[in-house]
Amino acid sequence: MTFEEARAQFPVLERFAYLNAGSNGPLPRAAVAAAQARLERDLAEGRSGMAWVEEIREMRERIRSGIAAVLGTTAELVALTDSTTRGCQIVLAGLGLGAEDEVVTTDQEHFGLTGPLHASGARVVVAEANEEALLAAVTPRTRLIAVSHILWTTGRRLDLARLRRPGGPPLLVDGAQSAGAIPVDLAVADWYTVSAQKWLCSVDQSGALYVRDPERLRVQLPSMFAQLSHEVDGSFVPKDGARRFDAGWSGGPLLAGFAAALGVHPEWRYEGAAAAAARCRELLEPLVEVVTLPGHSTLVAFRPVGNPSELVATLGERGVVVREIPGRHLVRASCGWWTSDDDLRRLADGLTG
Amino acid sequence: MTFEEARAQFPVLERFAYLNAGSNGPLPRAAVAAAQARLERDLAEGRSGMAWVEEIREMRERIRSGIAAVLGTTAELVALTDSTTRGCQIVLAGLGLGAEDEVVTTDQEHFGLTGPLHASGARVVVAEANEEALLAAVTPRTRLIAVSHILWTTGRRLDLARLRRPGGPPLLVDGAQSAGAIPVDLAVADWYTVSAQKWLCSVDQSGALYVRDPERLRVQLPSMFAQLSHEVDGSFVPKDGARRFDAGWSGGPLLAGFAAALGVHPEWRYEGAAAAAARCRELLEPLVEVVTLPGHSTLVAFRPVGNPSELVATLGERGVVVREIPGRHLVRASCGWWTSDDDLRRLADGLTG
Repeated sequence: MTFEEARAQFPVLERFAYLNAGSNGPLPRAAVAAAQARLERDLAEGRSGMAWVEEIREMRERIRSGIAAVLGTTAELVALTDSTTRGCQIVLAGLGLGAEDEVVTTDQEHFGLTGPLHASGARVVVAEANEEALLAAVTPRTRLIAVSHILWTTGRRLDLARLRRPGGPPLLVDGAQSAGAIPVDLAVADWYTVSAQKWLCSVDQSGALYVRDPERLRVQLPSMFAQLSHEVDGSFVPKDGARRFDAGWSGGPLLAGFAAALGVHPEWRYEGAAAAAARCRELLEPLVEVVTLPGHSTLVAFRPVGNPSELVATLGERGVVVREIPGRHLVRASCGWWTSDDDLRRLADGLTG
Repeated sequence: MTFEEARAQFPVLERFAYLNAGSNGPLPRAAVAAAQARLERDLAEGRSGMAWVEEIREMRERIRSGIAAVLGTTAELVALTDSTTRGCQIVLAGLGLGAEDEVVTTDQEHFGLTGPLHASGARVVVAEANEEALLAAVTPRTRLIAVSHILWTTGRRLDLARLRRPGGPPLLVDGAQSAGAIPVDLAVADWYTVSAQKWLCSVDQSGALYVRDPERLRVQLPSMFAQLSHEVDGSFVPKDGARRFDAGWSGGPLLAGFAAALGVHPEWRYEGAAAAAARCRELLEPLVEVVTLPGHSTLVAFRPVGNPSELVATLGERGVVVREIPGRHLVRASCGWWTSDDDLRRLADGLTG
């Protein structure tokens, strides 16, 4: 697949310099067409029957395998969720932490992770967003280190291999800004969340959760179809592997869109995205203070001279779509394998007025 | 809106005697068209920007008001969820029960309710599915009575007013088979779940949760946008009212379909559905043992002479869509305000061979 062919899958790119996959990826025509076709099918034929259930099941397994391929693992270790928030809820609820426990995180995390950390009842220890500070915050009471692989604010990539140490606390990774954006090595995570609507360009409410050792986490948020059997009192025999953590029912339109989105990514996805981010840096560095470290991620966060909200609005009027990182005086551009040199020049032009 | 006009909203009814709204309602053309249009919009314009966020927020509030109108309450007491399972998880997680607590339920509940009951850690006391048995099962340790308004198995309607007594335990109601099917009086519930994809004919993953007293339930499964503010350690100030329990992000296509589905129901919805169920009984009673009590619900469950799975399959081949209730030797027909006399005759004809 050439760059032009790959890029042509996304109609939004004909219209805008769309640089906000960190919020939501550009939608490929194939995903929307698949979701629409499935809506038509359900409209005409109804949502019922053995064949319909079997089609849903098959789509779920196809997606599970597709996510496993993205993460370099097996389908048995992948649960389907609707978001990174849900993935974090599943892990935190399952760990059953209490007030005497500590969880260590950074001061740059999304609420999708910190909300469930807080709700767990454990003491949330907030460290600066670097490996040294995180390791220094670990005590004998630490039951979990929970961090983003790539920080949504600054685009910094944390060195997970340094954080997950033999005999140390397990590692929950918020993969919202990494899965699909950079190659992921799961050897360094116990749980890894995927927000498929971002860098995997999927439809809304599509996500996943990698679970290294499914037998060791309690199923605390059970949903229908994640059990082999269940009794009238709600006790159940969970499915094998990570399927037991599936977050709930998803309809055919969502699954069809999700499955189709997994098929649009070229082999050179990671190289392409990294090159786009490097080019973005190159164009922006003469103009603004770029805070993302070179080579860390596909995000390029920068400190604008003036008001960030106003800049985002002004760029928007010129067809350049980026976002502000609230409260941090930062603007963030997301560079994908679909990003063109022209997209980036339009951003740079917008910064020079 | 005449019966013919109302019914014409559902293409599936041109093709099948679709009698399975208890699993998933027939989809109205308006809901599918709205979801598809929104997919087109997101495809062409992207999922980003202030205007886009505001449109999502507006759709959420429109749906919240629509559900409030269905339930006869105010939008302030309605949270948006993706399922009854999620609603039950939100309540059970929030109650923070322990092994010394008891929850009372019936022996006819769906796993969407009993799964969360079991996961709560409380002792699940299973009573026969009638008011006397439920009240007899209440002890000083009972922290919750959790039942369906209408049992998904037999279609029996429980008398909630008898179950919720002054000074007694609060009542969680699984409204999957009632919200949109029969008039609901929330005076008799502390929490009431809605599965909008069933009797409200909405798209998949659409649901809601009524919360009588939002301040008194802990937000244990927090999701983004349900807070007024939050800190780096995940602590947060919840939104006012039941909005704090919103289960998570929903995309524009889902919300557009959900909102449109709420607009297709005629004023005579409840009378129409009740009449269809009564007519269904009338046609089936000479042929099979009908187990649903007269006037209880829009479900008509019956005990077939032969094998239930085979009967469901045979009916399916004749274009009559009903479902088996596994393990109970029952087949269930769902009668909506859209159900025609011809639909019901086709079912009856299918039973006589």
